Amino acid sequence: MPLVPEEHRHAIVLGIDPGTRVVGFGAIALGARGPLFLGAGVIRPPAKAPIAERLGFIRRELDALLAELRPGVVVVEEAFAHRNVQSALRIGEGRGVVLACAVAAGARAEQLPPASAKKALVGAGGAHKTQVAAMVQRVLALEVAPEPLDATDALALALAWALRQSSATRGQRPG
Amino acid sequence: MPLVPEEHRHAIVLGIDPGTRVVGFGAIALGARGPLFLGAGVIRPPAKAPIAERLGFIRRELDALLAELRPGVVVVEEAFAHRNVQSALRIGEGRGVVLACAVAAGARAEQLPPASAKKALVGAGGAHKTQVAAMVQRVLALEVAPEPLDATDALALALAWALRQSSATRGQRPG
Repeated sequence: MPLVPEEHRHAIVLGIDPGTRVVGFGAIALGARGPLFLGAGVIRPPAKAPIAERLGFIRRELDALLAELRPGVVVVEEAFAHRNVQSALRIGEGRGVVLACAVAAGARAEQLPPASAKKALVGAGGAHKTQVAAMVQRVLALEVAPEPLDATDALALALAWALRQSSATRGQRPG
Repeated sequence: MPLVPEEHRHAIVLGIDPGTRVVGFGAIALGARGPLFLGAGVIRPPAKAPIAERLGFIRRELDALLAELRPGVVVVEEAFAHRNVQSALRIGEGRGVVLACAVAAGARAEQLPPASAKKALVGAGGAHKTQVAAMVQRVLALEVAPEPLDATDALALALAWALRQSSATRGQRPG
């Protein structure tokens, strides 16, 4: 059964850090008193499986996660230009599955520019992952930072998107 | 209802030419008297839709196609190293969706080296698409070549995979 009723669906934001070996995810709910932590974790397909099997595994797990959370928005980072063409192909494969799953689940797929989550949370695009994790923990008032760092990165994306939205809304108001 | 009962599923081979604007597909059945043409065509997501919407559209159409055809094997071409990193990312996104759909539908995802379909059918890796189309038409004894060329390319992949299998089987027999 879905965790979130249809009418509250718009308030759920799921950040995803795509990959073909580890996919990080982190979900928040946008409440009147700020963002609430819903959950975070990673999907890890069998490490030695061929690429198609890993992508199929990721699709299945993501479909289940999306059916449970029913996010209104799925946030991923735009892919930046990698030097290595072969790794760009592989990164694309992981992203393609995530974006298609998001749309198939009825969510809006949003992309944030690279490093914008770090900038939004820590104030510096070059911030270390542990600094980002500390800020995520603080903003969400968590006793411990979620682990592993792939999950924190995904949460940071969801938070950065939420911060953007709220500042855009504030910007629209007079005064 | 699936076109093909479970027990004949292994005999259905679906070739796919991935993409984010056009996805070509072509299906054959492996019979005792040679490959039989089942169908071919293209999936075209709305051209102006954002990439995530296009990938979601492709996933939905492919899921429907796979549910109807129930192929035992899905054949795609290995991605070759593109000069352009940005296009490699985009190509990866299209491939990721196809591979995940294939596995989700219970098919085996097989990859053929680039140009091997052309080599197998025409005898030259640099063959023109129209030459490949003519050979596909001839091997499958079709009155007209399937259109567009993206569909023919996908059929060529399915045929090349089938030819490979049958020559590998012959190679195992004595004499």
